[in-house]
Amino acid sequence: MKIGILGGGQVGQALWDTIHMEKENILNILGEPLEIKKVLVRDLSKKRDIPKDFLTNNPDEIIYDKEISLIVEVMGGEEPAHTYIKRALEEKKFVVTANKEVIALHGDELHKIARKKGVDIAFEASVGGGIPLIKTIKEAMAVDKVKEIWAIVNGTTNYILTKMEEELRDFEEVLREAQKLGYAEPDPSKDILGLDTKFKLAILSSFAYHTTIKPEEIYTEGIEKISLRDIQYAKELGYKIKLLAISKFYNGEIEVRVHPTMIPLSSPLSSVNGVYNAILLRAEKRGDVLLYGEGAGPYPTAMALLSDILEATHTILYSVPRYYSFAYLYPSKIKPSDEIYTRYYIRLWVKDQPGVLAQIAKILGENHISISSVIQKETSEKEGKAELVILTHKTYEKSMSKAIEEIKLLPILEEWGSLIRIEV
Amino acid sequence: MKIGILGGGQVGQALWDTIHMEKENILNILGEPLEIKKVLVRDLSKKRDIPKDFLTNNPDEIIYDKEISLIVEVMGGEEPAHTYIKRALEEKKFVVTANKEVIALHGDELHKIARKKGVDIAFEASVGGGIPLIKTIKEAMAVDKVKEIWAIVNGTTNYILTKMEEELRDFEEVLREAQKLGYAEPDPSKDILGLDTKFKLAILSSFAYHTTIKPEEIYTEGIEKISLRDIQYAKELGYKIKLLAISKFYNGEIEVRVHPTMIPLSSPLSSVNGVYNAILLRAEKRGDVLLYGEGAGPYPTAMALLSDILEATHTILYSVPRYYSFAYLYPSKIKPSDEIYTRYYIRLWVKDQPGVLAQIAKILGENHISISSVIQKETSEKEGKAELVILTHKTYEKSMSKAIEEIKLLPILEEWGSLIRIEV
Repeated sequence: MKIGILGGGQVGQALWDTIHMEKENILNILGEPLEIKKVLVRDLSKKRDIPKDFLTNNPDEIIYDKEISLIVEVMGGEEPAHTYIKRALEEKKFVVTANKEVIALHGDELHKIARKKGVDIAFEASVGGGIPLIKTIKEAMAVDKVKEIWAIVNGTTNYILTKMEEELRDFEEVLREAQKLGYAEPDPSKDILGLDTKFKLAILSSFAYHTTIKPEEIYTEGIEKISLRDIQYAKELGYKIKLLAISKFYNGEIEVRVHPTMIPLSSPLSSVNGVYNAILLRAEKRGDVLLYGEGAGPYPTAMALLSDILEATHTILYSVPRYYSFAYLYPSKIKPSDEIYTRYYIRLWVKDQPGVLAQIAKILGENHISISSVIQKETSEKEGKAELVILTHKTYEKSMSKAIEEIKLLPILEEWGSLIRIEV
Repeated sequence: MKIGILGGGQVGQALWDTIHMEKENILNILGEPLEIKKVLVRDLSKKRDIPKDFLTNNPDEIIYDKEISLIVEVMGGEEPAHTYIKRALEEKKFVVTANKEVIALHGDELHKIARKKGVDIAFEASVGGGIPLIKTIKEAMAVDKVKEIWAIVNGTTNYILTKMEEELRDFEEVLREAQKLGYAEPDPSKDILGLDTKFKLAILSSFAYHTTIKPEEIYTEGIEKISLRDIQYAKELGYKIKLLAISKFYNGEIEVRVHPTMIPLSSPLSSVNGVYNAILLRAEKRGDVLLYGEGAGPYPTAMALLSDILEATHTILYSVPRYYSFAYLYPSKIKPSDEIYTRYYIRLWVKDQPGVLAQIAKILGENHISISSVIQKETSEKEGKAELVILTHKTYEKSMSKAIEEIKLLPILEEWGSLIRIEV
């Protein structure tokens, strides 16, 4: 059984190491040895732990090699990975990938090619590192119905929010530290702005609901506007702020969104700290199932790849039909984002004078938004200004947007603070 | 594809319902229909939702039916379930069971028979209800090494501990309420004393470490001695008390134990509340993976059974070799319980007089136990007595046992309170 690897970076190296270290174990599982024939790298002269004979800088040497029946893609990025995967599938090769961008943006197309060619594309490693998320959705949930997904799938933002909360430090400061420690990229925008989370939610939701969710259909907010004040108020109120990937499937409509969210300490997601990832699946019959673990890192990722490789190899060796892949089957109907129905936390600076709260409460009331609690603290921080925090009961996004527009026109408003959705 | 079910109780009924409701889905997955031919019940005249034609009170009608290639056992209890399963395997039938007692006590024997006969026995439903624990250990961990298991696998005790903590109520009172609500059995001893947890840990550990762990080899303490005072002190100190199933595999030795444990709020297991179950697997390459969900209930259990049924049916239909089952392969070496190395919480009532703390500290010191903190509160509750709470650094169980023996002989000891191990 011969395979090729596209990509000789950290993950490719970890996969190489693991396959060699676990040789005997793999032989036991498959009944025959698993051999890596070639690894595609950009720079042949760079020093690495993979012997020179196994390296190539020509993708065609792997994609069009008749002896290779499975290709692992760990290059990352949309192109040329997408093109290589496409060619490999057209050559009737099974593909295993860790590439969230390619799957989120082209999963639909690639699955169709795979089906036509009688092969398969597997991507456990594209979401949640070493946590068997896709496997659980695919197999354990095959005869159940996933109704909701609640997930923390970006280690960088979760690390930043955790540090802000634990050490009461500012966003900018913690971000700089995260960059120094390698938990955030030099250009952290994909993580911070929620794009990485959006890609992953598109993959998970497409799979869970047997449909196609395009990343651009997902309402997305990042954590860049979360201030330490919000974190502190959340803490005081018994909540944590997490960047959540949320999707729900009811009445034929899919609600799908990524944004910072206040969740109560009683939620099992509230104790997911640092770079850890977690996904809560709410299923019709199984109820809530939560999976938690290391969402990144070369070895956890290599393990996820290896799980997929073993399963695909098993399929290749024994010509077993594969029945579990339900993604991208049906069209989806996305719920408009202004129909989101949830609780809200808003924070704003107002003039410190009588009747201010009444004016704001009036606007909320006129928009049928009912207040669940209000905090106004004595403060000397900004002269003549008072900081107001309001928590609402459940209401529609549309009503909330309208109320905020009106509040922003009030002469008593000194400075708009923030809006954070509250979920249980 | 015809199957038989041994047991027509709540789980059997839920499985019947699910297989009928998900008919089309199952057909898609298997490529042919899944048919329940017969259900074994004790009382044929009892009213149920399964048509009379499908019922029998003679197990042989299922076990020896040549048309039936897979038998699901959901009777519960050791006998006659164990005997029926054994006969079914000898008849070369695949077996799927939810029976933790049978697997914990006879898993080794039954696996041997299954291997000899070229069939298999699956038992996802025996631990953790609808959480895919066994599947994750079996497949996702196949080429990784599980080094530690930390689990909450008994809903009854977790419900009681959660209620005691949240509502500051006594053990006895909460237990009675749990019995009324159906969360505890009329005879709750199997749960309360940790026996149910012990069975489940035996199954998980046998599977994770590819060996045979017998329930009687597991050091076990229940929650019957946990008082509200302990819960309160734990809370004050930033801990929760949970009945944990713990096992570790290092240097060829397996440490395996069940007891109430103080865990810090930062542990992801600390937020597992009520009847929920969770298992934390610490693996060599994947790192920590935690699975959480509903640990019981007819429908979650039926879903776990159905996962196993589909997998086994797939194997039967396509004659695929099965490679993943590594349990019961190697002999085990169990670490003696007095070599446990952990932190301890002790609580005791002493005479309220000078020099008392010094006497206790002296005994601890002589046994090489170092104190990490001490709480002694002013109290008028018991005249002339003071309550002392001591937390230690890590030490050996043997040293701790010896120190406690000596403390119990001190004339200044008024009343022994409790000992609870602290784990991170």
